[in-house]
Amino acid sequence: MNKLTHFDDNGQAHMVNVGDKPHSLRIAIASGSISMLPATFDMIAAGGLKKGDVLGIARIAGIQASKKTAELIPLCHPLALTHVSLEFESNQSQSKIRCQVKAETTGPTGVEMEALTAVQVALLTIYDMCKAVDRGMVMGEIKLLEKSGGKSGDWVSQ
Amino acid sequence: MNKLTHFDDNGQAHMVNVGDKPHSLRIAIASGSISMLPATFDMIAAGGLKKGDVLGIARIAGIQASKKTAELIPLCHPLALTHVSLEFESNQSQSKIRCQVKAETTGPTGVEMEALTAVQVALLTIYDMCKAVDRGMVMGEIKLLEKSGGKSGDWVSQ
Amino acid sequence: MNKLTHFDDNGQAHMVNVGDKPHSLRIAIASGSISMLPATFDMIAAGGLKKGDVLGIARIAGIQASKKTAELIPLCHPLALTHVSLEFESNQSQSKIRCQVKAETTGPTGVEMEALTAVQVALLTIYDMCKAVDRGMVMGEIKLLEKSGGKSGDWVSQ
Amino acid sequence: MNKLTHFDDNGQAHMVNVGDKPHSLRIAIASGSISMLPATFDMIAAGGLKKGDVLGIARIAGIQASKKTAELIPLCHPLALTHVSLEFESNQSQSKIRCQVKAETTGPTGVEMEALTAVQVALLTIYDMCKAVDRGMVMGEIKLLEKSGGKSGDWVSQ
Amino acid sequence: MNKLTHFDDNGQAHMVNVGDKPHSLRIAIASGSISMLPATFDMIAAGGLKKGDVLGIARIAGIQASKKTAELIPLCHPLALTHVSLEFESNQSQSKIRCQVKAETTGPTGVEMEALTAVQVALLTIYDMCKAVDRGMVMGEIKLLEKSGGKSGDWVSQ
Amino acid sequence: MNKLTHFDDNGQAHMVNVGDKPHSLRIAIASGSISMLPATFDMIAAGGLKKGDVLGIARIAGIQASKKTAELIPLCHPLALTHVSLEFESNQSQSKIRCQVKAETTGPTGVEMEALTAVQVALLTIYDMCKAVDRGMVMGEIKLLEKSGGKSGDWVSQ
Repeated sequence: MNKLTHFDDNGQAHMVNVGDKPHSLRIAIASGSISMLPATFDMIAAGGLKKGDVLGIARIAGIQASKKTAELIPLCHPLALTHVSLEFESNQSQSKIRCQVKAETTGPTGVEMEALTAVQVALLTIYDMCKAVDRGMVMGEIKLLEKSGGKSGDWVSQ
Repeated sequence: MNKLTHFDDNGQAHMVNVGDKPHSLRIAIASGSISMLPATFDMIAAGGLKKGDVLGIARIAGIQASKKTAELIPLCHPLALTHVSLEFESNQSQSKIRCQVKAETTGPTGVEMEALTAVQVALLTIYDMCKAVDRGMVMGEIKLLEKSGGKSGDWVSQ
Repeated sequence: MNKLTHFDDNGQAHMVNVGDKPHSLRIAIASGSISMLPATFDMIAAGGLKKGDVLGIARIAGIQASKKTAELIPLCHPLALTHVSLEFESNQSQSKIRCQVKAETTGPTGVEMEALTAVQVALLTIYDMCKAVDRGMVMGEIKLLEKSGGKSGDWVSQ
Repeated sequence: MNKLTHFDDNGQAHMVNVGDKPHSLRIAIASGSISMLPATFDMIAAGGLKKGDVLGIARIAGIQASKKTAELIPLCHPLALTHVSLEFESNQSQSKIRCQVKAETTGPTGVEMEALTAVQVALLTIYDMCKAVDRGMVMGEIKLLEKSGGKSGDWVSQ
Repeated sequence: MNKLTHFDDNGQAHMVNVGDKPHSLRIAIASGSISMLPATFDMIAAGGLKKGDVLGIARIAGIQASKKTAELIPLCHPLALTHVSLEFESNQSQSKIRCQVKAETTGPTGVEMEALTAVQVALLTIYDMCKAVDRGMVMGEIKLLEKSGGKSGDWVSQ
Repeated sequence: MNKLTHFDDNGQAHMVNVGDKPHSLRIAIASGSISMLPATFDMIAAGGLKKGDVLGIARIAGIQASKKTAELIPLCHPLALTHVSLEFESNQSQSKIRCQVKAETTGPTGVEMEALTAVQVALLTIYDMCKAVDRGMVMGEIKLLEKSGGKSGDWVSQ
């Protein structure tokens, strides 16, 4: 493939026609991380129900954002997600929290954008909740890890 | 400050009371980048009106997303943005596009989240439009660069 | 069933995987009521086109809200409703208006939440339109009456 | 006052003109409850971080819904909330959970609908998360407890 | 003025900075019409509460749409409307229904787009409700009639 | 057909039951235009990447709006669009820009409203971007051109 499919021959953007594409199970896994000061990391770790469950709220924000993907990304097709889950992994030595999202649907289009959107908004929510103590947090390594289903088949990040 | 302000003394999340905070001019500048294959970078650069204006569409997506920040981030206060602008900077040697957003309002709360949300969704939109040719793009270095206004005053990323 | 299906084994919320569930016709009927002062009840009853159609507007608000269910309820699956209708029943002796909603779709998940959300927002809309004359209105008896379709089959409120 | 202010003299609905109303601090407190089987009540109580934090998620859903009030209720004015908090009170003997919401803003219109919307969606979220084990839950006693600010002044439920 | 203010000197779109503009009362009046078959016109006219209140529903849709203007129009500033009203005028001889909207706010930006958006969506709603009997309806004459407030002052359509 | 299908026998609005309707390919083509001063027309024509791409932004706004149709039009069924494209045609002699939209889905309901909504919001976006130089622009001739699929079959505007 050597052109961007979201544009027609005149360079005009459109929502690509997927009416002819067969319905298949689509799975996408994406991840990203947020780095922070050790003190911020400790606050989140010490959290939970008693002191404030930052990651629990970020998880909900990520799930809800995945349902808004087609509203946020102009040329995304609307689709009905059949599954979304988020996992957080805390890396104390690097003061970093990693978020991994799995999204699924059955349909003509993939769910890569839904998984990535959930990652981004989950990280943003962590930033929001901790910014009063640490404005210098950095989000990064946000990428697709793997996807399956559809005409282009399986793909795994190298 | 040694606690997360989005939680009360029992660890319960709330939308922080900003009713007593004075209204002042709030400015936030945030940035982030997306790395890609050289061939993808060249396609975007060769784009524009004739072959498809990826960055123009990402700019619109970022502006629109900034207006949805309070809908996406659970504990964000709704606010009326008075200005949003996005700039893209293309780094050919690194096959990387950097996005910088400036957001402004006059009110009791800052616009850091609005600026960061615009960055995230602009990068996601670039990913979406190029994913058919390059699934391995990576988004990163997403952070606040500076903010001014409000009780906590000015802040600049080190 | 002895656990809450919206959580995994570690107590983390997720959008339950419904990818394997067969598509079937799903119907849900829910209801609720709002109690008010006799004078308020009379104003609504005297309404209609000439004096203001409170129930007509509440009906539209309920239908529109049913389409926003997945946006409001964090772990709800998005779905395409195939039918929504609302009926109001006025009980003059108790100064109470009862709202009953029927929602339908064909898919892997039920529409109980869509029916209940329509009831809630229809009642809220009545409250909104009458609150200037009666702030003490009370909403209650909001519940599922029956549902059919899906693996768990038919259910009728006792 | 003897007419419904959301209608003009011809019975046509409009968004009431509040341009002349002075800005003042507006506070509203609303509450509601959901009744369930004792076994369901125990599951929620046993929850928390390890087994699933139903109330934590309902709290977030309520806060987010309060920001969508003007989108849900047709004739509500859009406004910028300055504070929202939810508290849950568990009544074991009655197998009932009560939700109380406080909402605030400074402006020409009150926040009664924002507080009530948060109550409704928080209760709906509890219903959603527990419906697989208890479809017969009933929501009720949803009402305004008190409000202050504005031309009509203070009001307390009797 | 000889350039489009939504673009900077490099032709890049932005949300214009209105932070320095003074707050003033802003009013906009817009209108538009929909032409139909005489039989369709008669159905709407015969409507009302008994046979279906097409115009009542279109009025609510228009009011709700005005609140979504900043979500629909990419470079519109979000603002808090203080008043919206719609009037319909039926012209039997031309089988045409005219919709006129008045929108108001107090702030740094005008409400022309809010008034026009309400007109458009009200007309679209009439189309939707009647399309099963008359697909050939045509919407037109959609324009701003007058606006007041702001630096550019008063303006009246000629 | 001699009644409006969005109302039941008592004149109450509902979302029509489409659960029994077969799924088929649905296509709708709609169009509309905006008339302006010659100087405004020339500014848009001179635009493009360097001076500001009005039509490119209007195209994106139209595509995004088509995805919001069921949110804007009260009795519209939610559906998953499989294709949307917009074309603009500039008529210099009349200082008019015409927008034509094609929308597609496979399902039980048509996409006429999605196509018309995209036309309306694309035209509104052009108005918004040019209103600082030309408030007198007029939108008109907004209509369905043709539709295919569904029980009522093909239809072409005369």
